[in-house]
Amino acid sequence: MERRAKKDVRILNLLPVTAPGIVSEKMLNYMNNYLEKETVVDVWQIGYGITTTGRPGEALPGGAAKYGPHTIESEYDEALAGPSVLDYCQKAEELGYDAIFIDCFGDPAVKAARELVNIPVFGGFEPAAHFALGLADKICIVTVMSNIISLMKGNIAKAHLNDRIVNVRAVDIPVDQLNNGEKIIEALYKQSMKSIEEDGAQAIILGCTGFIGVAESLKNRLLQAGYDVPVFEAAQCALKMCEVYAKMGFRQSRLTYMKPPVH
Amino acid sequence: MERRAKKDVRILNLLPVTAPGIVSEKMLNYMNNYLEKETVVDVWQIGYGITTTGRPGEALPGGAAKYGPHTIESEYDEALAGPSVLDYCQKAEELGYDAIFIDCFGDPAVKAARELVNIPVFGGFEPAAHFALGLADKICIVTVMSNIISLMKGNIAKAHLNDRIVNVRAVDIPVDQLNNGEKIIEALYKQSMKSIEEDGAQAIILGCTGFIGVAESLKNRLLQAGYDVPVFEAAQCALKMCEVYAKMGFRQSRLTYMKPPVH
Amino acid sequence: MERRAKKDVRILNLLPVTAPGIVSEKMLNYMNNYLEKETVVDVWQIGYGITTTGRPGEALPGGAAKYGPHTIESEYDEALAGPSVLDYCQKAEELGYDAIFIDCFGDPAVKAARELVNIPVFGGFEPAAHFALGLADKICIVTVMSNIISLMKGNIAKAHLNDRIVNVRAVDIPVDQLNNGEKIIEALYKQSMKSIEEDGAQAIILGCTGFIGVAESLKNRLLQAGYDVPVFEAAQCALKMCEVYAKMGFRQSRLTYMKPPVH
Amino acid sequence: MERRAKKDVRILNLLPVTAPGIVSEKMLNYMNNYLEKETVVDVWQIGYGITTTGRPGEALPGGAAKYGPHTIESEYDEALAGPSVLDYCQKAEELGYDAIFIDCFGDPAVKAARELVNIPVFGGFEPAAHFALGLADKICIVTVMSNIISLMKGNIAKAHLNDRIVNVRAVDIPVDQLNNGEKIIEALYKQSMKSIEEDGAQAIILGCTGFIGVAESLKNRLLQAGYDVPVFEAAQCALKMCEVYAKMGFRQSRLTYMKPPVH
Amino acid sequence: MERRAKKDVRILNLLPVTAPGIVSEKMLNYMNNYLEKETVVDVWQIGYGITTTGRPGEALPGGAAKYGPHTIESEYDEALAGPSVLDYCQKAEELGYDAIFIDCFGDPAVKAARELVNIPVFGGFEPAAHFALGLADKICIVTVMSNIISLMKGNIAKAHLNDRIVNVRAVDIPVDQLNNGEKIIEALYKQSMKSIEEDGAQAIILGCTGFIGVAESLKNRLLQAGYDVPVFEAAQCALKMCEVYAKMGFRQSRLTYMKPPVH
Amino acid sequence: MERRAKKDVRILNLLPVTAPGIVSEKMLNYMNNYLEKETVVDVWQIGYGITTTGRPGEALPGGAAKYGPHTIESEYDEALAGPSVLDYCQKAEELGYDAIFIDCFGDPAVKAARELVNIPVFGGFEPAAHFALGLADKICIVTVMSNIISLMKGNIAKAHLNDRIVNVRAVDIPVDQLNNGEKIIEALYKQSMKSIEEDGAQAIILGCTGFIGVAESLKNRLLQAGYDVPVFEAAQCALKMCEVYAKMGFRQSRLTYMKPPVH
Repeated sequence: MERRAKKDVRILNLLPVTAPGIVSEKMLNYMNNYLEKETVVDVWQIGYGITTTGRPGEALPGGAAKYGPHTIESEYDEALAGPSVLDYCQKAEELGYDAIFIDCFGDPAVKAARELVNIPVFGGFEPAAHFALGLADKICIVTVMSNIISLMKGNIAKAHLNDRIVNVRAVDIPVDQLNNGEKIIEALYKQSMKSIEEDGAQAIILGCTGFIGVAESLKNRLLQAGYDVPVFEAAQCALKMCEVYAKMGFRQSRLTYMKPPVH
Repeated sequence: MERRAKKDVRILNLLPVTAPGIVSEKMLNYMNNYLEKETVVDVWQIGYGITTTGRPGEALPGGAAKYGPHTIESEYDEALAGPSVLDYCQKAEELGYDAIFIDCFGDPAVKAARELVNIPVFGGFEPAAHFALGLADKICIVTVMSNIISLMKGNIAKAHLNDRIVNVRAVDIPVDQLNNGEKIIEALYKQSMKSIEEDGAQAIILGCTGFIGVAESLKNRLLQAGYDVPVFEAAQCALKMCEVYAKMGFRQSRLTYMKPPVH
Repeated sequence: MERRAKKDVRILNLLPVTAPGIVSEKMLNYMNNYLEKETVVDVWQIGYGITTTGRPGEALPGGAAKYGPHTIESEYDEALAGPSVLDYCQKAEELGYDAIFIDCFGDPAVKAARELVNIPVFGGFEPAAHFALGLADKICIVTVMSNIISLMKGNIAKAHLNDRIVNVRAVDIPVDQLNNGEKIIEALYKQSMKSIEEDGAQAIILGCTGFIGVAESLKNRLLQAGYDVPVFEAAQCALKMCEVYAKMGFRQSRLTYMKPPVH
Repeated sequence: MERRAKKDVRILNLLPVTAPGIVSEKMLNYMNNYLEKETVVDVWQIGYGITTTGRPGEALPGGAAKYGPHTIESEYDEALAGPSVLDYCQKAEELGYDAIFIDCFGDPAVKAARELVNIPVFGGFEPAAHFALGLADKICIVTVMSNIISLMKGNIAKAHLNDRIVNVRAVDIPVDQLNNGEKIIEALYKQSMKSIEEDGAQAIILGCTGFIGVAESLKNRLLQAGYDVPVFEAAQCALKMCEVYAKMGFRQSRLTYMKPPVH
Repeated sequence: MERRAKKDVRILNLLPVTAPGIVSEKMLNYMNNYLEKETVVDVWQIGYGITTTGRPGEALPGGAAKYGPHTIESEYDEALAGPSVLDYCQKAEELGYDAIFIDCFGDPAVKAARELVNIPVFGGFEPAAHFALGLADKICIVTVMSNIISLMKGNIAKAHLNDRIVNVRAVDIPVDQLNNGEKIIEALYKQSMKSIEEDGAQAIILGCTGFIGVAESLKNRLLQAGYDVPVFEAAQCALKMCEVYAKMGFRQSRLTYMKPPVH
Repeated sequence: MERRAKKDVRILNLLPVTAPGIVSEKMLNYMNNYLEKETVVDVWQIGYGITTTGRPGEALPGGAAKYGPHTIESEYDEALAGPSVLDYCQKAEELGYDAIFIDCFGDPAVKAARELVNIPVFGGFEPAAHFALGLADKICIVTVMSNIISLMKGNIAKAHLNDRIVNVRAVDIPVDQLNNGEKIIEALYKQSMKSIEEDGAQAIILGCTGFIGVAESLKNRLLQAGYDVPVFEAAQCALKMCEVYAKMGFRQSRLTYMKPPVH
């Protein structure tokens, strides 16, 4: 057999926001939880140059685009992130990464990056959605702020998944207050229950890559309420999806994602 | 009656690309062709500061965002345009404009701008599409480069207009070679004929705001071929739509376009 | 430039019902509120011959079709209106009108009239809907009687706008009791609130051309309840749309609206 | 058992056009071909008073609405037929008919008539379509004139059957030249073949109630070309459907078809 | 005329479950209630050999497939029924039946059987659904157990009827406890009311062929609550549909249902 | 962290057909190509008892259901496979497998098996489709025989993926003649080209799990023709998907896939 799975995969986890203090040891361990042990994940953050945090990687001189939104909670924030994200993606490809995870559920510049580079690129939305499709007919996304619901519904419509992803709901807790675990789980539980009972949801996607380590608790609370449904954490789904695509050698269609014309 | 149509409307025509030589006297006259005589259109271009060209307006010191794509022919180009476009939109609102036309059929940052400002904002796509809905059941967009078809189909899907706008076709002539009128009309005619005969199109939208002054010739050629169908030029439709929304006092829904959170 | 906007537009506002006392000075002023000052609107009513009311126009001998429904609150009423409406539309074109507004939200005979004449024809539904598309993702129509909801949902389905216009609700106040302003606004407010909170509506279209002068009050009440959403009055939208189409020289596609065969 | 099938069913076959010479002995025999022997079909034609032709029935004095289109080949023709059709339907109910077939594939005033009377009403479109659904996934309608395609696609869209009825094609032979059997079958065959090979059609509905006695020949020709597909004649389907609904005691939902308000 | 309706129709009513005691004299009378008097219905049950019950028919030696589910309340049950159902269908065709009703609302092996035999085959879902389409825009199915809702929604989606059949609800009474008439009607009434008031349903289909003789009572209770809507019993609809298809000579499209390849 | 990826995954590859000679050393190597080295795949075939072939596994006494179709090329074949497949799936769960791949693109009994067992179950369709969604907007399936196209389109419709998976095409080479590599690739190339040029496909899924080791060649031929598109082999996609779901601990929603009632 000539084709082989790529064994040592390097993934770039790119944070498309400038808020400080997001990357932590705990988060990095958590994200790597389901990856193979040869897989390397480096974390970059726009506005901070290319500094690899966490897992071993090559330290690189800065200089990339340094602007971007504090957090992404609106179409406005997302549009601000575009040029920086693309700048970093191009560098990532040059440095030999096998896949890129743009670490935001709004999928900022994901399609643009797919045009630009020759490696798989995912945001937070698609991987969780595609995994959920294999386990449930009707899916609900529970996100952070209502401001981003229209954007997400737009992404669902663009993906023609409206008949499977039946609603997007928000807990309305700002992104930078996501550390209060108890409060978050309570709010997620409340919205998930409404979605199951009113929207007919049969699976829950946590619609913010900043929701980490809460799926298990949420799943248990729903189970106690009589609902045995899968709960998906977007960042873990995305990193695993990046790993799988890299291993399988999957690359974007150049009929969907043509290379941008050069001037 | 307390409510009155706003009589003196000021529209900003914002070019979201940095290619030089786009704005001309001819283009400005052309664009104003269907506007009321009290309506003022100022033209700004990202990367050039705020210089008002053509119709009388206030000259303003530069300093706004100066980066952006040469032209917009891909998702990549569009993502690059975001921050500059938003910067200029905010200034436009501060300066008292009544509506903004982001002069590109790809609708770059249109939804983000609607969140940011309190005045109507249109790109090239929606106005032509909404006008066409009143005249034909099945509509085809004929654009410039194939690279942007996926983006446009994404916008159509987001707008849930897939059942009305039945295809997007490209003439595959780069944007900066749009001055060869004969060649363009021939290419547009060929694609329009294919769309009528293969896609069932009953109206044609010219899917690039750079197609100016060709609709009439195209319409006549199609008529000679036996097809009496409307042909829409996006820039004229958009400016007229901006004028009408301003006069009617229409403003975006704050449930669809919430104000971006402030940090 | 050869093409010019038509400056002096003449619109026929055709009432397709026979109930007396509908046309008033107040209504006429109101309807003209957003039109350009050179635009002339004449009002005809089926069953009354061609008498121009309100704005100056040519008085003409009667003789046109004289049958029709008292009001339009069902498919049945709408079917009754057809032949008279078409008779008047043909006369309007002969007399040189530039556009026709068939003044009913049910769009009676609108498509038939587009086949018959060579000028734009609108009912109440499309103009408000097409304007709303530029401001909100999800739209609700609030109409008068439940009897006409199926017809309206049929029109929405025919227009393939089901994914944008998410519901049609009724206040269940008969058309000829629409003069009690307080009561109407209260009922409209109640249904609009339900639509926002239960259907996810982000904009409201008043689904009867007889709702006049209530949008502003309704909009304010919704704003006080925390919902900043646009509210559209169908008759104003329709007349403005007629004016714009006439000015732009837009004419229906003859592939969608073929001329009726002659026998 | 209290409920019983109604055994002696009386159906009104109402011709909504004024062209002379349509009703013939041959047509009447043909239409009754699949009905039970106790079933009585009377044929009325608008513009001719209530004269029962063919099968035994009660002769009645005229006086009903006498206007209507020559034939129905456009939205315009259909709108003209409305008031007369409704007038006759009301008389039919008073005279004790059990079901009404409005004998036109465009379904003129069918929904209005369902509101008006308390017995089942069908045009030509729905019965053939509903029967075809049980035999094939993808269905094509082949009709007479292109002028009526938009109307039919509108009816398909209103019925939300777009994903099953994949196209409407026309032979472009005027309704009053439908007697040349050879020519018609050749034209139907050609369009059916195109629909099978290009649209993926798997069943053919003859989209004009005037296509009588051609289905068998068309079916055989398609079979010789290798395509074993059902072919439906609308009038036979409709009369049988009327008989079945009458026997089963089915009546329209008064939530879909509310009674028209009385003034 | 060469073509004639088949007058003496023989229908096989095939029970695809092995639970004893389902076939009763009462059920057989009830099912034949709307059929023509020359029509013969024989009842077979998988697992019991070919024994004709009720109406006169030919007794035949057993030997057919004898496995199958106790009842059908899940995808699992349905998959178990497949081979037996197909075995009996083939025998039925050999014995000269004109149509087959696979007596279960889940439509087990219906499509497979259509491939296999040359006569019409229906389960419980399609006939009731197709009849309901002619009387109401929005339809709800009320079935027995929640377990089968996903399967039914899958069948609705496969049939592309999602926009007409707006929900499936369950009374959650197991199939083998369907003899308590009072309790069933109460439960059906409750779900029907919810569907009318929350889902906008305008007609009710009883989504289990074991619901017999309850439609009339349910319809009356809904009428007393102010809702005049049709209620469909699946088994009666299916048997009548079988009879009609047989009489009309309708046979499945061989482009949709190709003959299975032989090995 | 409490949650951990399961490291040693055991997958059952269940062949739901009885044709001999399908399992070969080459096929097994090929299928394991992209799996982690700790992952064990056992291959069972219905009708042959539980014999583990290829990769090391536990040999088990037979006795499971022994009936099934020779190959699966129709709805009929698929229905025959149901009971055996379910019988084996239950045994697999008892024996501690972590996931099941029912090795057929028609997804026979996949949903039924998900109800029955508590581990992920996939057929060939969903994994390839879900992977393709991340790389292309418009996807075409190229399968073996035309007989199975309707079934596959039904599965696509049930999954609500019609707007992404734009066509299913067949090479019309029987499953048991799939060893002629040259001929197959030529036929696949021809259908893929038609799909790209006529259907607008941007990615190709090989719609039979028996297509093994041809994707690379097909991809290269398409590339030479100017189309750089991904090509997916269903069996590899499915096994990788099984592995990932097992590692992530994903389990089916019990609101979509309720446990079958026990009698």
